[in-house]
Amino acid sequence: MGEFELISHYFAAAPCAQGGEGVALGIGDDCALLDLPAGEQLAISTDTLVAGVHFPDACDPLLLGQRALAVAVSDLAAMGATAIAFTLALTLPDVGRNWLAGFAEGLGRMAGRCAISLIGGDTTRGPLSITVTVFGRVPTGQALRRSGAQPGDLLCVGGDLGNAAGALPLVLGQRSAPADVAQPLLDHYWAPLPQLRLGEQLRGLASAALDISDGLLADCGHIAKASGVALQVDQAQVPVSAALLALLGRDAALHAALTGGDDYVLAFTAPQAALASLVQPYHVIGRVLPGKGVVLRDEHGQDITPQQRGYQHFGQTV
Amino acid sequence: MGEFELISHYFAAAPCAQGGEGVALGIGDDCALLDLPAGEQLAISTDTLVAGVHFPDACDPLLLGQRALAVAVSDLAAMGATAIAFTLALTLPDVGRNWLAGFAEGLGRMAGRCAISLIGGDTTRGPLSITVTVFGRVPTGQALRRSGAQPGDLLCVGGDLGNAAGALPLVLGQRSAPADVAQPLLDHYWAPLPQLRLGEQLRGLASAALDISDGLLADCGHIAKASGVALQVDQAQVPVSAALLALLGRDAALHAALTGGDDYVLAFTAPQAALASLVQPYHVIGRVLPGKGVVLRDEHGQDITPQQRGYQHFGQTV
Repeated sequence: MGEFELISHYFAAAPCAQGGEGVALGIGDDCALLDLPAGEQLAISTDTLVAGVHFPDACDPLLLGQRALAVAVSDLAAMGATAIAFTLALTLPDVGRNWLAGFAEGLGRMAGRCAISLIGGDTTRGPLSITVTVFGRVPTGQALRRSGAQPGDLLCVGGDLGNAAGALPLVLGQRSAPADVAQPLLDHYWAPLPQLRLGEQLRGLASAALDISDGLLADCGHIAKASGVALQVDQAQVPVSAALLALLGRDAALHAALTGGDDYVLAFTAPQAALASLVQPYHVIGRVLPGKGVVLRDEHGQDITPQQRGYQHFGQTV
Repeated sequence: MGEFELISHYFAAAPCAQGGEGVALGIGDDCALLDLPAGEQLAISTDTLVAGVHFPDACDPLLLGQRALAVAVSDLAAMGATAIAFTLALTLPDVGRNWLAGFAEGLGRMAGRCAISLIGGDTTRGPLSITVTVFGRVPTGQALRRSGAQPGDLLCVGGDLGNAAGALPLVLGQRSAPADVAQPLLDHYWAPLPQLRLGEQLRGLASAALDISDGLLADCGHIAKASGVALQVDQAQVPVSAALLALLGRDAALHAALTGGDDYVLAFTAPQAALASLVQPYHVIGRVLPGKGVVLRDEHGQDITPQQRGYQHFGQTV
């Protein structure tokens, strides 16, 4: 048995690979098999993280395992899907036992938090890269799309924004901060908890939804384009954490919240009346208007043109 | 729009990404959505190909696109599943228009031959690597497993073996051959056609099945282990192509057929009576016995111990 085959056996023995609801056959045959309840659709998403582009080569494998899975599962939350299973395609330059143990531990922790099972994958030799494909189930026709926002709907987000962007210089060792400031930000960067419960509650309630990965303004642009509407964001309503404010101050924190990527917090639109039944926390940050594009309003109700809507890839910042 | 986002749009516009049976939502939202008919299960498999390990860096992107998809779809055939859809995680060092056009063309050709639709993926910057995850449907309980072989069953394969191993020195430019010898072998290496029709016919008929990727003897070992039986292979019955014989001669051709990897031909076991209803071509090459392991019999009916059961990874041969 080759060392890479040994790795497959290693993952097959992990607690998160022992099956779960909907998993008819896990690791070990040519394919895995999933059962899907009648009246449901299967939601599928794939995300790749490459060393040196999406994470530093030398980062803690436990944190990397958590993050690789969380980033992918967040797309299930964004569709209002319930997580079922995932596959892992892991490319490694060599086989380090400690690295593998840490990575599997992180993967398993996040799998436990998301109630998702590892059902297969492939392990190959090469430059470090991780591709996770996630599977969820959602009642037929109730998946949350980007295309249903209607003028008059409110624009909401599921939590504080900008934490991951604020954490990036800490992750890269470019700056430091007291533990009570740094730790909440680093926790959010390395283990963003996919908002699966919120996504499930939004079924039949939200008119459009996605998870914020490119930055709030850029992702609002995706909803606006897909729905054929304009989105107005009230800068004063955008929620930022105490840790981010402490690290960056008000102006830079707001900038991070508006343009930073990797938040993996849901953004959604919904009629005001529908929001009354929402139990999970959320923040109203704007509204849907006729027109197109994204309009940012400052604290005085003045429209301002966002200077930067983009998102700096990790690889472009180092 | 960044150049990697442009690539996503490029693939989204490809003919193979325009949906198909079972595809409720394709590329463009947070997740794709699949419908699964009542009474069917979803079969899933993931394969990664890494430049310099599984293919030469400088190979024709059209051929690479064909092969990357074929290798993954072959796992659906091995389960008796009908192909529905696939995702593509593509990591590229840079964006070459010609390379992309060739790769997409090859991917599309193989997708057409397999009647499978591209429904999503991720494009990232990094060392060249391709991860394809395939989805198929199979009637509940009828998937072809590795674990059902029974003593008394016959052992069969779906076509000639060893062609890919024979092609490898041609692929690597280590030797040459006349076109009528080289071309059939190269065709098999770069565009192995997944035996989907054979797999579908084997539902409810075969007792065990897989696709030969590690080499006949090694893969027979997988069936033997999973089923708790022994497999006897009659060397004289193992089918080899005229091109392979012309390239290597009888002894080396047989060696390639027994131990070469990457054939992506189905191997299966079935009761003799069940085989009568099989319309697709197949070759009986041995039988299932009580015991364990794989026994190779020579032309005189003598048991011989295989000298080499392994499989030489591309990366280990260069």
